[in-house]
Amino acid sequence: MSLAPWRSSLARALHRNRSLAYARYLQLATVRPDGRPANRTIVFRGFLDDSNQLEFITDDRSEKIAQIQHQPCGEICWYFPNTREQFRLAGVLSLIAADEPNETLCKARSIVWQKLSDAGRLQFAWPHSGEERSPDANFAPDSPDAIAQRSRNGIEPPSNFRLLLLDPTSVDHLELRGDPQNRYRYDKAENDEWKKVEVNP
Amino acid sequence: MSLAPWRSSLARALHRNRSLAYARYLQLATVRPDGRPANRTIVFRGFLDDSNQLEFITDDRSEKIAQIQHQPCGEICWYFPNTREQFRLAGVLSLIAADEPNETLCKARSIVWQKLSDAGRLQFAWPHSGEERSPDANFAPDSPDAIAQRSRNGIEPPSNFRLLLLDPTSVDHLELRGDPQNRYRYDKAENDEWKKVEVNP
Repeated sequence: MSLAPWRSSLARALHRNRSLAYARYLQLATVRPDGRPANRTIVFRGFLDDSNQLEFITDDRSEKIAQIQHQPCGEICWYFPNTREQFRLAGVLSLIAADEPNETLCKARSIVWQKLSDAGRLQFAWPHSGEERSPDANFAPDSPDAIAQRSRNGIEPPSNFRLLLLDPTSVDHLELRGDPQNRYRYDKAENDEWKKVEVNP
Repeated sequence: MSLAPWRSSLARALHRNRSLAYARYLQLATVRPDGRPANRTIVFRGFLDDSNQLEFITDDRSEKIAQIQHQPCGEICWYFPNTREQFRLAGVLSLIAADEPNETLCKARSIVWQKLSDAGRLQFAWPHSGEERSPDANFAPDSPDAIAQRSRNGIEPPSNFRLLLLDPTSVDHLELRGDPQNRYRYDKAENDEWKKVEVNP
């Protein structure tokens, strides 16, 4: 596997914006089963080893799940404030659950869980997201250790934890700081080769 | 027309994040004619007078146009870094062109154009966005004054300038700083009344 040609630009943007924690926040657009779009902020967790796939996490109680099962294509929009540039990455989303048969992906899911903060892990023990909040809702049911122990061996993620992958097929990179502005488009061809074209901003 | 109940929270977020120019940047998700989602950063231009509709601008050569004509529902995702809160506003998009029969909307289009910076106006004279860039492409064809003069009376916007409106029908407001977090959902009912519910984050 070779790095896609847009990877170096994205790595540079991440590096130059590293002072901002929210430079790892981006927006994922999906399509609802009724055909309307959905859009929410998610956190970039890194690249799946030896691939150009971006890693995110989600809860199997999230509305995203049904949307992705219905329409696996997604588009993320990622704006970097310090360098004033935007990446739009369109591609195919996949969800990796506990019963994932592919060993590499199953392991990747565990690794992402292990890298999560305690606060990040705790959210997977919260009540069902988006449902009406009850005054009795318990958002601190257990210590993070207790949550970990409820899983198979204290290291494995809980069953509702899913790794979400985006495998990009086209990337649009806009630099607002150019004069006038610079914009590049990358498309993945049938043979998995990437083609880069400079386009009008 | 009464202000929707989510307007005060959004106004507060805008105020508390006013030190960041990019706090007025947000991401708009639409659906492509082939059913895949699209997502890009756009700039909030204010509210249409005496309404809860958000104003944006676009060029009639943009891919957004065909997407919105095909599926007028859109969802914006707006993250405010200083206050760590997110608004998701789903609703119906409409495009206001030069031939708009509604006088109020036609006037609103002119007012948004008049408030644009010279750099913002100049973009409407650029070559077709997204097309392959030619070495001869001219991104400074005229002074902003000359562009204005090419339009009807020096004040009217050029014909490819469109006002884009989002009329929200549901709003999801998430405050990450709450303990654990706070999340509210607003839905517009048949009678145009808004209903607010606190939901699980």
